[in-house]
Amino acid sequence: MIREIAEHRSVRNFKPDPIDPQVITQILGAAVRASNTGNMQVYSIVATTSEEVLAQLRPCHFNQPASRAPLLLTFCVDIHRFSMWCERRGAKPRYDNFAWLINGSIDALLASQNAALEAEAQGLGICYLGTTIYTAEKISDILNLPGGVLPVATIAVGWPADNPPLTDRLPLEAVVHYDTYKEYTGEDIDRLWHERENSDETQNLLEVNGLPNLARIFTEKRYTAQDNLSISESYLSEAKRKGFFNH
Amino acid sequence: MIREIAEHRSVRNFKPDPIDPQVITQILGAAVRASNTGNMQVYSIVATTSEEVLAQLRPCHFNQPASRAPLLLTFCVDIHRFSMWCERRGAKPRYDNFAWLINGSIDALLASQNAALEAEAQGLGICYLGTTIYTAEKISDILNLPGGVLPVATIAVGWPADNPPLTDRLPLEAVVHYDTYKEYTGEDIDRLWHERENSDETQNLLEVNGLPNLARIFTEKRYTAQDNLSISESYLSEAKRKGFFNH
Repeated sequence: MIREIAEHRSVRNFKPDPIDPQVITQILGAAVRASNTGNMQVYSIVATTSEEVLAQLRPCHFNQPASRAPLLLTFCVDIHRFSMWCERRGAKPRYDNFAWLINGSIDALLASQNAALEAEAQGLGICYLGTTIYTAEKISDILNLPGGVLPVATIAVGWPADNPPLTDRLPLEAVVHYDTYKEYTGEDIDRLWHERENSDETQNLLEVNGLPNLARIFTEKRYTAQDNLSISESYLSEAKRKGFFNH
Repeated sequence: MIREIAEHRSVRNFKPDPIDPQVITQILGAAVRASNTGNMQVYSIVATTSEEVLAQLRPCHFNQPASRAPLLLTFCVDIHRFSMWCERRGAKPRYDNFAWLINGSIDALLASQNAALEAEAQGLGICYLGTTIYTAEKISDILNLPGGVLPVATIAVGWPADNPPLTDRLPLEAVVHYDTYKEYTGEDIDRLWHERENSDETQNLLEVNGLPNLARIFTEKRYTAQDNLSISESYLSEAKRKGFFNH
């Protein structure tokens, strides 16, 4: 298996050392080699290293330790640049709709994964910050993102200050279906989660959280109904404000 | 740069030779190592090699040459499995909303890019099929995708029957912004597209299409307003039907 894929773990603590601009260029060069929709490249990457801008972005990522990385790469859907080119050529672009929110997300995310792997190939550590969609409007304002440009994912990049172990995954058979989707039975679900539910890590989490099972930690602590609905509304609203639902 | 990233090109013509199941497992094993939201793995991969199912899927991909690959990997947002686990544990999942359509898309797409690169590391060729969102409802029916499961991307995988050249990209400065987003001037746009617009390939396309510039080929032939709006409506409708807008 490709070494960087096999050895990937999320690094959340970084040394303060800056990253050489040539290394950053190398990572970005890897990002743009990814497949993209019609070779239209309907995404942009904002590579932030300025302490002034980083200080504004960190609260958008709830000041989580990984957000203290010396480089934040914000991957955005971007129909603005392509549409601007079209208009300048007398063509009439209509990419301000849901299909292109998805196409642009695909472009941005494939590029982000290339960047993540290439950063790791350079000896750097990375962490995806899922908080990007929580605070997309604030991030947009800080990064001056115009209409047609919506942030979808951020990677924190830096020199690792620790070396966390690989994270477990559900068994491959939990995620993969052969030929067509096979509905799970209750017994399947129990079996697929058995190892995780019975790990020392889970037992520890149950004690700390005072809850009887891991599922309730997810629904009552980590990703609650209230937060999910609030984030859905705010991100949808930001996607509309940026012009991705003009239909 | 990681070799598979540097050498990636979309392969659209495949030999009919099947892919060894162990190689497929290796590719899928690489996919699940990708970062994902909260380690919840809210995605599924349908790996189709059965000729019967492939024959049904190909028209969903407009029978494009790449769809004749011996392996189609359909990457899906999947909140169903996780929600089923929660319900079975007496937890109350609320992942049936837009935030989790996006989180699941992130998970599915990072996994897909790992799979693409690992397939290439195995000597296989790959092509992303953007048609997945055009015909998501039909694909869902063929693959028996339940509520909470929405296809977002497909990779065709097979042994390459040809060796296409690398595809050009816009200059890196077109896609990358340092610190914050820098608005383009008209002159920037002209400069960034200059090489592509003046290539032999473009000149040839203009003649074939009888149009005065490349932008109009995109807006009038490849990705028209009518198609964009129709796909937006059908994919949004499918996302709603699958329960991603229950708010």
